[in-house]
Amino acid sequence: MSESLAAIDTSLPTVNARIHPRGGLDVLSRDEVARLRDVSSGGMHGLLRGCALAVLTSGSASDDPRAARELYPHFDIQVHQQDRGVRIDLVNAPAMAFVDGEIIRGVAELLFAAVRDLAYIAIELGKEGARDLDSSDGITDAVFGLLRNARLLQPCEPNLVVCWGGHSISREEYVYTKQVGYELGLRGLDICTGCGPGAMKGPMKGATIAHAKQRRRRTRYIGITEPGIIAAESPNPIVNHLVIMPDIEKRLEAFVRLGHGIIVFPGGVGTAEEILYLLGILLREENAHLPFPLIFTGPTTSAPYFEQIDRFLRLTLGEAATSRYQIIIGDCAQVARRMHEGIGKVRGHRIAQKDSFFFNWSVDVPFEFQRPFVPTHEAMAALDLHHGRKPHELAADLRRAFSGIVAGNVKEDGMRRIEEFGPFEIHGDPDMMQSMDALLRAFVEQRRMKIAGEYRPCYRLVA
Amino acid sequence: MSESLAAIDTSLPTVNARIHPRGGLDVLSRDEVARLRDVSSGGMHGLLRGCALAVLTSGSASDDPRAARELYPHFDIQVHQQDRGVRIDLVNAPAMAFVDGEIIRGVAELLFAAVRDLAYIAIELGKEGARDLDSSDGITDAVFGLLRNARLLQPCEPNLVVCWGGHSISREEYVYTKQVGYELGLRGLDICTGCGPGAMKGPMKGATIAHAKQRRRRTRYIGITEPGIIAAESPNPIVNHLVIMPDIEKRLEAFVRLGHGIIVFPGGVGTAEEILYLLGILLREENAHLPFPLIFTGPTTSAPYFEQIDRFLRLTLGEAATSRYQIIIGDCAQVARRMHEGIGKVRGHRIAQKDSFFFNWSVDVPFEFQRPFVPTHEAMAALDLHHGRKPHELAADLRRAFSGIVAGNVKEDGMRRIEEFGPFEIHGDPDMMQSMDALLRAFVEQRRMKIAGEYRPCYRLVA
Amino acid sequence: MSESLAAIDTSLPTVNARIHPRGGLDVLSRDEVARLRDVSSGGMHGLLRGCALAVLTSGSASDDPRAARELYPHFDIQVHQQDRGVRIDLVNAPAMAFVDGEIIRGVAELLFAAVRDLAYIAIELGKEGARDLDSSDGITDAVFGLLRNARLLQPCEPNLVVCWGGHSISREEYVYTKQVGYELGLRGLDICTGCGPGAMKGPMKGATIAHAKQRRRRTRYIGITEPGIIAAESPNPIVNHLVIMPDIEKRLEAFVRLGHGIIVFPGGVGTAEEILYLLGILLREENAHLPFPLIFTGPTTSAPYFEQIDRFLRLTLGEAATSRYQIIIGDCAQVARRMHEGIGKVRGHRIAQKDSFFFNWSVDVPFEFQRPFVPTHEAMAALDLHHGRKPHELAADLRRAFSGIVAGNVKEDGMRRIEEFGPFEIHGDPDMMQSMDALLRAFVEQRRMKIAGEYRPCYRLVA
Amino acid sequence: MSESLAAIDTSLPTVNARIHPRGGLDVLSRDEVARLRDVSSGGMHGLLRGCALAVLTSGSASDDPRAARELYPHFDIQVHQQDRGVRIDLVNAPAMAFVDGEIIRGVAELLFAAVRDLAYIAIELGKEGARDLDSSDGITDAVFGLLRNARLLQPCEPNLVVCWGGHSISREEYVYTKQVGYELGLRGLDICTGCGPGAMKGPMKGATIAHAKQRRRRTRYIGITEPGIIAAESPNPIVNHLVIMPDIEKRLEAFVRLGHGIIVFPGGVGTAEEILYLLGILLREENAHLPFPLIFTGPTTSAPYFEQIDRFLRLTLGEAATSRYQIIIGDCAQVARRMHEGIGKVRGHRIAQKDSFFFNWSVDVPFEFQRPFVPTHEAMAALDLHHGRKPHELAADLRRAFSGIVAGNVKEDGMRRIEEFGPFEIHGDPDMMQSMDALLRAFVEQRRMKIAGEYRPCYRLVA
Repeated sequence: MSESLAAIDTSLPTVNARIHPRGGLDVLSRDEVARLRDVSSGGMHGLLRGCALAVLTSGSASDDPRAARELYPHFDIQVHQQDRGVRIDLVNAPAMAFVDGEIIRGVAELLFAAVRDLAYIAIELGKEGARDLDSSDGITDAVFGLLRNARLLQPCEPNLVVCWGGHSISREEYVYTKQVGYELGLRGLDICTGCGPGAMKGPMKGATIAHAKQRRRRTRYIGITEPGIIAAESPNPIVNHLVIMPDIEKRLEAFVRLGHGIIVFPGGVGTAEEILYLLGILLREENAHLPFPLIFTGPTTSAPYFEQIDRFLRLTLGEAATSRYQIIIGDCAQVARRMHEGIGKVRGHRIAQKDSFFFNWSVDVPFEFQRPFVPTHEAMAALDLHHGRKPHELAADLRRAFSGIVAGNVKEDGMRRIEEFGPFEIHGDPDMMQSMDALLRAFVEQRRMKIAGEYRPCYRLVA
Repeated sequence: MSESLAAIDTSLPTVNARIHPRGGLDVLSRDEVARLRDVSSGGMHGLLRGCALAVLTSGSASDDPRAARELYPHFDIQVHQQDRGVRIDLVNAPAMAFVDGEIIRGVAELLFAAVRDLAYIAIELGKEGARDLDSSDGITDAVFGLLRNARLLQPCEPNLVVCWGGHSISREEYVYTKQVGYELGLRGLDICTGCGPGAMKGPMKGATIAHAKQRRRRTRYIGITEPGIIAAESPNPIVNHLVIMPDIEKRLEAFVRLGHGIIVFPGGVGTAEEILYLLGILLREENAHLPFPLIFTGPTTSAPYFEQIDRFLRLTLGEAATSRYQIIIGDCAQVARRMHEGIGKVRGHRIAQKDSFFFNWSVDVPFEFQRPFVPTHEAMAALDLHHGRKPHELAADLRRAFSGIVAGNVKEDGMRRIEEFGPFEIHGDPDMMQSMDALLRAFVEQRRMKIAGEYRPCYRLVA
Repeated sequence: MSESLAAIDTSLPTVNARIHPRGGLDVLSRDEVARLRDVSSGGMHGLLRGCALAVLTSGSASDDPRAARELYPHFDIQVHQQDRGVRIDLVNAPAMAFVDGEIIRGVAELLFAAVRDLAYIAIELGKEGARDLDSSDGITDAVFGLLRNARLLQPCEPNLVVCWGGHSISREEYVYTKQVGYELGLRGLDICTGCGPGAMKGPMKGATIAHAKQRRRRTRYIGITEPGIIAAESPNPIVNHLVIMPDIEKRLEAFVRLGHGIIVFPGGVGTAEEILYLLGILLREENAHLPFPLIFTGPTTSAPYFEQIDRFLRLTLGEAATSRYQIIIGDCAQVARRMHEGIGKVRGHRIAQKDSFFFNWSVDVPFEFQRPFVPTHEAMAALDLHHGRKPHELAADLRRAFSGIVAGNVKEDGMRRIEEFGPFEIHGDPDMMQSMDALLRAFVEQRRMKIAGEYRPCYRLVA
Repeated sequence: MSESLAAIDTSLPTVNARIHPRGGLDVLSRDEVARLRDVSSGGMHGLLRGCALAVLTSGSASDDPRAARELYPHFDIQVHQQDRGVRIDLVNAPAMAFVDGEIIRGVAELLFAAVRDLAYIAIELGKEGARDLDSSDGITDAVFGLLRNARLLQPCEPNLVVCWGGHSISREEYVYTKQVGYELGLRGLDICTGCGPGAMKGPMKGATIAHAKQRRRRTRYIGITEPGIIAAESPNPIVNHLVIMPDIEKRLEAFVRLGHGIIVFPGGVGTAEEILYLLGILLREENAHLPFPLIFTGPTTSAPYFEQIDRFLRLTLGEAATSRYQIIIGDCAQVARRMHEGIGKVRGHRIAQKDSFFFNWSVDVPFEFQRPFVPTHEAMAALDLHHGRKPHELAADLRRAFSGIVAGNVKEDGMRRIEEFGPFEIHGDPDMMQSMDALLRAFVEQRRMKIAGEYRPCYRLVA
């Protein structure tokens, strides 16, 4: 699969290698190969380089998107055309991705996945007029196309649990996520997460052990990411299916359409964004009768955390929101049992509706949750966080507020904007701002914002 | 896979059934399902119905495209949309495709293949501006796309032998094709044919026994057809991969790009068309250095047949043509050994050229061999069969002449034209016309034109 | 798997080869390898040589056990010890078992099976005091042991149809056996026969095509033979599981314990022996409630044949015998449907009795049907074919009578005895002798005794 | 696989279940089932109960063989006969082996393995005169038979690394064993250990992650144990192949014949026993030219430990012993690379010697290392630990000395003897006793003797 060349000396050990892709990239037409080479050498080169570096440092714990680039300043990736197909040349690549000069097979697969998805984004979604990305159906279709192209849509029994939660969590919380993953795995459930460390890694690790004990051979540890976040949340080494969605909104839609139930562990602003996205959708009239198991859980010490989240959701989205989730504290087996039952109901509903098991066509995701939100200072200041709005509209704007803070914390674009223009200003009703402030302060105190270093807020709440 | 409904009584026993597709048709987007339903109920309904009937009478020996339709006059097929995907409803379908009310699995696969390919032709190739079918590269790309969509392009060792030859051949010739297939199969070679009876079935049958003896589990018996011919040459029951190309020219290109070598058995005008197509291409300067094993073979009694063909080729294409083929009479094992050696050279050449094993990108197929030829009386009369033209141009027109006669013999459109306007007139140099006449008369005498009944020529040669 | 050496010239082409076994013979202890070598070079060498030659001429149509030996007079097989395991050296082996110097994989598997079974017979069954072959349970245990060692006992759904019938049958009958095999195969049933030509090959061939159409990958075409018969009934090329039982009685028991139902096609004395064996067992009180589908079938022209058999059975075993079989003439699909239903009942019975699917423990086979019968002139003359005996005792002796005639016809030992001492004398009641005489004469007239040549009876019936 | 019955209340949660075995126990003859039932209800019942309990508490960390029995006082296991085969009834079994009333599949497999091996020991090895257990060859044959019956002997590339080391090791040492396992796994190597916690678990856990990253599907984590030790060293949850050898000597021989190289991590007396066993064998003239990679390794803090072992080996076995092992401190990747190279040499040697890959026939294990040693006070006092004896004879007695101390520490029989008669007395030359004393004291101080509690020596060294 790879032939290693002589390595050039740098600060960290590196390797040069030529890799011949497999799994979907091995049967391309001449035209597709040419387009792939153009895409990767053109405007998308920087993006590809960043994603490749994230994948090659899989398992690294840093959440600083610029860290890897500084450690491997001379890294480069080039896609070359051969008559037979594609060849990927890696220059000064992290030695940690190789064993005795040979690339680790799982890392190679993640690398091919990155090339595959960026090519799909550039070629298929970029075609003039080929795709309608300005309508709700068009976006859902693009999400479907990307996931199918990534070979994630397969006819099989519903068993996919999405696990959300922070990349920066306490040891105790991490151990708990592993235990929940273990209990899920014992019950034959597969795991899908945001593919980084912390609560995104623990459930996969636990499930790996349980799947081995249950002798399950075909297991899925799916990581769904996007170009802005992959550098900060490098895929953990358990991920065996990686998909890079074009933006955060399509990534969230992918979670909701692919998963058969969702578990939320303690997390920071990213997790808050995810909760608001999901509840904003589930609270819609159109989705009222849709079964969708949603469990908030953590170890006993996390009880206050979920009480605070619960309070914030009641205040902002109303009491009705609470009917959509259950909170289970310190009982891993119970979480797994409830999820297993919940997925049983999803299965029954899909059969009754003649809906597919592998893609949730029935859930209604409105356009306001799909349209990409770019957190400029103007856009953040324009958010309308006031009582009296329809719950799902308010939820949509709250989601955007948290999304902007994530960007300011760990995404390269967002960090640059904050460095240049100072913190975002976010406006809203006083009680809402107060509650949000309490929530964000707690995240800071509990070190949920960043893995390392002192946290300097990238936002200012204005009542 | 199927649920049988109560059967309605007709002359031949029939069955009604609902079938849920697999294998590519099971992971469709809502939009694709809708388009598929539209396609199948719109202008393409007749085509789909015809192909489906051919597949459901797989193994039938008739070469009359209207026969099946007369035997099953109330047969219909409808593609329905369900949220889960597609459902195919068969009404008054031939009972021979079912066992105790359950559709035979292999027949179901051929049926899904037919729906899949017609959908691809209608949706992918039919898109406004999406495909360029007016250039050589564009057509090759369409051929590639169709074959990949049919899952025929897989990375594996070169081992695919295309077998051409008549659907109407003598018992002795048929037994010989089986023996050659057996010897090929013993050497690990897979078979690709035009998917009908006679020389298209024998090699597959022989290879089946040999593959069983060699304990090969993953075998390929590929049938490549087109809508105009499938009704007259119903897929034989051994075919386990069926692909329907949009027209005869793309079907011929598929043979040439997919196969690693070609064996020609005795046949009629269709076989002559194939030989002229292939030699027209191989004689081009651009393909001079391309290894391409090509063997004409038959039992001892067929020796005169190949002598006549040989004479015709020398006369029309010149002595140079003979360097491209070898004639082996009455020695099956030798045929298989030579083909095996020849494919070894193809393998070496592909590796040296970094060309893929699964698709012959290197062979140059000029546009004149790709452009669909519609054999109207005008077009047939306009063919320019004179000495002095470049060999490949003359070969192209000769190919069209035989193609037109095939249409007049067994394709529905062609047969209708002949009934209405009388035989085609074909013009050319006297010696060429004489030689062609001798060839065609021999075909008639040897009963190679039609399986049953008296043959009435659909052409008139004018010197 | 094989390395071919230079071939020595003889009348028929031959090959020398070294073969390294697989599939059970590849994990032997040093001690086992040594014993295997000793066995194969000692008293069993002739037996091994004969079985190996039969396997290497698989597909040959002769039923003369001495024919192959005369065609390949210099053939030899030696089993050599290597530290890694066993090596088989073939000297002057039939070239028909090889392709371009490489042994055909299926033939190699049959060869390993022969070595494996003869080794088991010599080593496991030959151990002093290790096995009790003088009791009914002990013999059944030996049958079980041999079949398990041959990897034929696997947990899977009941689907094994034993097909009995003649090796020398008419073309029309042969085509019918293929059609029945085809209908069985369409219904997911596997085939087990005596592994020779004629009715032992047809059903397997038909099932092969049907299994291919139903896309069944794991199919079983089991041939059960014994050293005395294998030379006369060389395994047909479809057989993919071969087992050599030590004698005719254990071979018959293997059929009954392994199969889930039995179909009898027209045949000669061997088939009559099988029918009498089976009915003798099924008519016992102990087996009265055991479901065991048994169908006699043939083309319309075979109707008189089965009428005669039916009369003979009524006369000898009484009317009760007819409750155990059904006769279906000229309706292949009906045969398959009835067998399928019958096996469904067997399945239910096994579940209710908690009996295994893969071995029929419940059927009671008395010792008189298990004890090996050596057809000397004395033993044949001592048979007691008179009315008034218990049906199963009479059946046992009738079975022996036919068994002796089979030996006199096609087994080497038996043929030698007849040549030396003249025909066997068989004594019995006049009406029984008359009916038997009529049956045997019909076999002769219908050419069911021998494939080629004039038939000279090896018996004389004495009333 | 299991049907859970109502659980009876006890101190720890328990479950009653009926289990239908698979994997070798599913194709038994009636006779074998009956013998298995007799064995399991007769004299071997206690042993079976103990092994079953160890397996059902797989993953428990206690090394007290009586602990599990006290926690599950009402646990029982019965093997019942059904016509179909065997049924295992579990009464008051540890609930930790079940998920929602269903037994964990991997635990069930270990349970079947325990029944399978005890049955083989009782039935095959217990047969009168069937096995010669009083000769060296006979014992090797028994080891081969047991391992083959456990399906551990398969034709595959040499890649099995045996890891020895303590069950009670420091956190730092444990993490190091995981890292070594990870590096081994990255290089495609499988792991075999004594199947308990500590150094027996770490390498398997590390290899699991590496194998997942390298996408290896067919992995082997083999645990080899014996009835006396399994209760104290419950199989860790990663083990996917368990084999119970009849005694410690056959267990040691199994390691040596099965493994292609051995890594020794820090450990206590058990590890010392293993080192002396192996070196005693490798130092024999007969094994002088046999490649056998042997590496002692641990984290930097373990350096003094290996220095002490090294000194002891030089003093007792002489300087020559050091040529047989290499010590690598704190460099996991280097350990894996050296092992990988070493196994490459083993592979070459096996091919040259035509020895099998799956069983090391070539290594000479003398009878004195094979004869079971029962550590009574008399036998321990009779050990002859003096200079001047041949190295391998001295090694054999030293091995026995450590073996006795293991028994006194953690095996039930040994513990009982110590409680009754006080510590063993071990006699030897003063310098040897002094060095041994220092070693044992260090083991005590480093808490390598027992996982929990104060250690009271079970031996007294007498110079």
